[in-house]
Amino acid sequence: MDEVMADVVPAFLDLYESQLGQRPEKKDYWGKKIYKLPGAMQVRESLFDRGFFADLPLMEGCLDGVEWLHEHYDLFIVSAAMEFRNSLEDKFDWLQRHFPFLSWKNFVFCGDKSIIQADYMIDDHPFNLAAFKGKGLLFTASHNIDEHRFERVNNWAEVRAFFEREMERERQSAAI
Amino acid sequence: MDEVMADVVPAFLDLYESQLGQRPEKKDYWGKKIYKLPGAMQVRESLFDRGFFADLPLMEGCLDGVEWLHEHYDLFIVSAAMEFRNSLEDKFDWLQRHFPFLSWKNFVFCGDKSIIQADYMIDDHPFNLAAFKGKGLLFTASHNIDEHRFERVNNWAEVRAFFEREMERERQSAAI
Repeated sequence: MDEVMADVVPAFLDLYESQLGQRPEKKDYWGKKIYKLPGAMQVRESLFDRGFFADLPLMEGCLDGVEWLHEHYDLFIVSAAMEFRNSLEDKFDWLQRHFPFLSWKNFVFCGDKSIIQADYMIDDHPFNLAAFKGKGLLFTASHNIDEHRFERVNNWAEVRAFFEREMERERQSAAI
Repeated sequence: MDEVMADVVPAFLDLYESQLGQRPEKKDYWGKKIYKLPGAMQVRESLFDRGFFADLPLMEGCLDGVEWLHEHYDLFIVSAAMEFRNSLEDKFDWLQRHFPFLSWKNFVFCGDKSIIQADYMIDDHPFNLAAFKGKGLLFTASHNIDEHRFERVNNWAEVRAFFEREMERERQSAAI
């Protein structure tokens, strides 16, 4: 969810600014998590607060992208939410509010995504994709720009383009 | 969790009695869910209430059984909790309270367990085991006594006995 569906970066920048007195620029946090900046570990503590995840904005193109994927695939939303007990209801409500066409049957909150079995996984964390047996797509985020092991999608338009190529490839191999 | 780790039957019997004026006997609900008794569908609505899952008693032998499994295997607790938004925090707290030796990393709340990849699954619902690619163990509950497709474990002592046999079998095949 975070940094793929939900844009958590503005919330981190707000917290950083309120706690440390200035707003980091993109060049400051490019290549890392915002809370890994010097003196900013306290920013991460906000993830444990009820309400932190409740009102995060959607990533650009996510709504259309998820709707399109849901039409063409069995889509599951898998969030490593379990570290943050107080995020569970916020994340559930956020998913139901933004994606009313998805069923709770397709929501998964876990701690460790290595338990997940699927054909594809779109994730911003290389360690999730490294443990995944299917095809992993690395969704670009500031903290993963130096990672080169996985096929990369930079935005939701590229997610859709990837799966359109996959479907075309499958149509062609089915036609042979 | 329910009917394997958490004993939900007394709570259902209490609700039935308070709503319908008498307490069903085991022979009345043997072979089905208590809320499938005539006139009792309202009992199931309580699953949506905050607090319903908070104080369920442990199934007999579950604490020792889970501790033993945790020592010998990578153990994940997978609950189809997602239908019940208000159960998420209750279930998380229940797990942390009763099993402080387990990590949140090994908790999974989902809607559809077909997304789960593991070597074994212990479950009271045949439809979960039917969708599972590993070895399924059917944990006996009133609603599954007429099911014969899966190896059955009647209680936590039998769970442990099953895995002791598995470990012995693996030791012997490793020794050959």
